Amino acid sequence: MVKIVGIGGSLRTNSYTQLALQIAAQRLEAIGAEVEILDLRQLNLPFCNGDKEYPEYPDVQRLRDTVSNADGLILATPEYHGGVSGVLKNALDLMSFEQLSGKVTGLISVLGGQSNSNALNDLRLIVRWVHGWVIPEQIAIGQAYGAFSPEGKILDEKLSQRFDQFAQSLVENTRKLRGVD
Amino acid sequence: MVKIVGIGGSLRTNSYTQLALQIAAQRLEAIGAEVEILDLRQLNLPFCNGDKEYPEYPDVQRLRDTVSNADGLILATPEYHGGVSGVLKNALDLMSFEQLSGKVTGLISVLGGQSNSNALNDLRLIVRWVHGWVIPEQIAIGQAYGAFSPEGKILDEKLSQRFDQFAQSLVENTRKLRGVD
Amino acid sequence: MVKIVGIGGSLRTNSYTQLALQIAAQRLEAIGAEVEILDLRQLNLPFCNGDKEYPEYPDVQRLRDTVSNADGLILATPEYHGGVSGVLKNALDLMSFEQLSGKVTGLISVLGGQSNSNALNDLRLIVRWVHGWVIPEQIAIGQAYGAFSPEGKILDEKLSQRFDQFAQSLVENTRKLRGVD
Amino acid sequence: MVKIVGIGGSLRTNSYTQLALQIAAQRLEAIGAEVEILDLRQLNLPFCNGDKEYPEYPDVQRLRDTVSNADGLILATPEYHGGVSGVLKNALDLMSFEQLSGKVTGLISVLGGQSNSNALNDLRLIVRWVHGWVIPEQIAIGQAYGAFSPEGKILDEKLSQRFDQFAQSLVENTRKLRGVD
Repeated sequence: MVKIVGIGGSLRTNSYTQLALQIAAQRLEAIGAEVEILDLRQLNLPFCNGDKEYPEYPDVQRLRDTVSNADGLILATPEYHGGVSGVLKNALDLMSFEQLSGKVTGLISVLGGQSNSNALNDLRLIVRWVHGWVIPEQIAIGQAYGAFSPEGKILDEKLSQRFDQFAQSLVENTRKLRGVD
Repeated sequence: MVKIVGIGGSLRTNSYTQLALQIAAQRLEAIGAEVEILDLRQLNLPFCNGDKEYPEYPDVQRLRDTVSNADGLILATPEYHGGVSGVLKNALDLMSFEQLSGKVTGLISVLGGQSNSNALNDLRLIVRWVHGWVIPEQIAIGQAYGAFSPEGKILDEKLSQRFDQFAQSLVENTRKLRGVD
Repeated sequence: MVKIVGIGGSLRTNSYTQLALQIAAQRLEAIGAEVEILDLRQLNLPFCNGDKEYPEYPDVQRLRDTVSNADGLILATPEYHGGVSGVLKNALDLMSFEQLSGKVTGLISVLGGQSNSNALNDLRLIVRWVHGWVIPEQIAIGQAYGAFSPEGKILDEKLSQRFDQFAQSLVENTRKLRGVD
Repeated sequence: MVKIVGIGGSLRTNSYTQLALQIAAQRLEAIGAEVEILDLRQLNLPFCNGDKEYPEYPDVQRLRDTVSNADGLILATPEYHGGVSGVLKNALDLMSFEQLSGKVTGLISVLGGQSNSNALNDLRLIVRWVHGWVIPEQIAIGQAYGAFSPEGKILDEKLSQRFDQFAQSLVENTRKLRGVD
C-alpha cells in the first residue's frame, strides 16, 4: 500500500492550506493510499540551528521517522511573500537526505492574491536538491478565501478535478517509482 | 547617513553566515554606512502564524521597527537544501510590505558544498515580491569551512574584493535610490 | 533625457506582447522618456552560436549599439512553456555585459493562460547575471486575448494603472541610478 | 527498449555542451538504451513565431516526430547569461504538450565560469510546465574548458561518476514511469 505523509506549512487556526491538504489526503485515500497528516500546529518543533539532533524536541524525531517510513509526500504551503513559508521550510531543514531522498512528492500552494507558482517552484527545486521526485501535476489556489464552501468543499469544478488528477498521479507514480502496490 | 540592517539566517553557534554578515557590515561601515545587525540567535521570535500582531513576542516589534527605520538591508542565509533557511524566511514572513517595501537589499549565501545561487535567487524574488530593490552584486560562499582564517578573515583575495564591491554598490545605490547622503 | 530601448520577444503578426510593449512605451514617453522599440520581427538576427561577431548579420551590431546607448530597457516576452521565449533569450544571448551591464530594466510578460510570473522570474535572474538592475514593478498579463480592446487599449483599469506605475518607476529610478535627467 | 532523444542547445563548432551530451548518450547506450542525438547545428529550424505549422521548415516536423517517438529526453544547454540558451528554448518552443508531455528528462548544463544550477532550474520548471518528468540527478559542468581531455574524455573521476548515475537513473526511471523494458 502506498504510504503518503502530508505536511502543511501554515500555523493559522483556520488555514486554507491545511484544508487543501486534507482534501488532497481524502482524494488519495479514496484511491487506495494510506495518508498521514503531520499538523505542524500540533508538533512542537524548534528552529533549525544546524544541529543533527534535538533531544529536547522529541517531535523532530517523530517528524523524521514518519517521513522515513513513507513512500511519498504532499507538501502544502501558503505562499508568503512569493515563497514557501518559513514554517514549512524550517520543517524541511530539520530533515535531511536520509529522510527525503527518493520520496515522490506532490506540491500545493495557497495564496490570498492571484494564483502564482513561485512557492511551487521553490519547493520543486528544494525537493530536487534532496534527490526527491516531484510529480508534474501541482496545485496553486489563488484567492483562497473564495475557493471553499463553508463546509470546506472546493467550489470550482475544474479545481476539484485538478485535485483528482493530482491524487491519481501521486499514487500511480509512487507505485511505479517505488515499486509498491 | 545610509542606515543598513543586516539579518543573518543561521542559528549555529559558530556560523559562517553570521561571520560573512559581520564582514560585510565592516566593509559598509568603512565607507560611511551605519549598520545594525539583528542577530536572530538573540531575538526571541515565534513561528509566523499569519497573525498581524504578536504581543507575547516583543522582539517581533523590535525587528519590524529596526527594519522600518533602515534604508537598506543585508540578508545573509545559509543555503539549506538548495534554498533560503526557514529561520530567515520566517523572520521575513513576520514582516510585511510596510517594513520591507522600497528597501535596497544586498544578498549573501553560504553553503558547505559547491557555491550556488539557488538561495540568492529565492531571496531576490522574495524581496521583489515585497517591492524591495536588490543590488546586482551578490555573494555566494561555497565550501565555507575553508573560506575563513581562524581569526575570521576571508582567505581568498577575489572573494574579499567581492565584499568590497558589494559594500560599495549597496551604499552608493541606496544613496541614489533613497536620496540619502 | 532618459533613453529606454524596448525589446519584445514575440514574432507573431498580431502579438499581444508587442502591443503591451507599445503601450508601455507610450506611458514612458508621456512622462518624458525617449523610447525606441527594436522590433525583432524587423531585425534579421541569427541564432547565437557563441561567436563574438556576426559580420553577415549587421542587425546584431544595430541591436548592440542601440542597447549600448540606452539607459534602460523594457523586456517584454510571451510566456512560452512557462519561460521566456527563445526568441528573446537568443537576442539577449547575442549581447554581453558590455551592452547590458548597469541598465535599468522593466519586465513584461504575456500569456494565454492564467497570469504567472515564471518568465518574469527568469528575466529578473538573467538581467541580474549581466549586472543589470530590474525595477520591482513588473507586469504579467494573463489571458491576453481578453485584455485589450480592438483598438489596442487595455480594458482593465487596474492593469492600466500598473502600466502607469511601471512607467513611473522605470523613468524615475533610471534617473536616480544613472544620474540622467 | 528505452528510447531517448538528446538535444543540445549550443551551435558552437567545438561545443562542450554537445560533447557532454555525447558522453551522456554513450553511458546510456552502454546500459541498454537507444539514444538519438538531434544536433541543432544540423537541423534548419526557424525562430518560433507562435504558428502551429512551419511548412517551409521540414526539420520542425522531424524534431517533433523524433521527440514524439521517444520515451525520454536529455536536454543539454550551455548556460548563457545565467539561463538556458535561446537556441534550446526556441527548439522547445517549436514543440508542444503533444510531443513533450510525459517524457522523462535528464538535464545537463555547461558553462565557462563557476558551476551553477540556474539553467538547470529553468529547464526543470519548463519541462514541468509541459507535464514532463525530470530526474533528480542533474549535471552542471563549470569551467568547461578544463573538464575534458583533448580526446573528449571527462578528466574528473567524480564528474564521470555523475554521468554514470545520471544515465542509470534516466534509463531505470524511464522504464518505471513509461512501463518500457
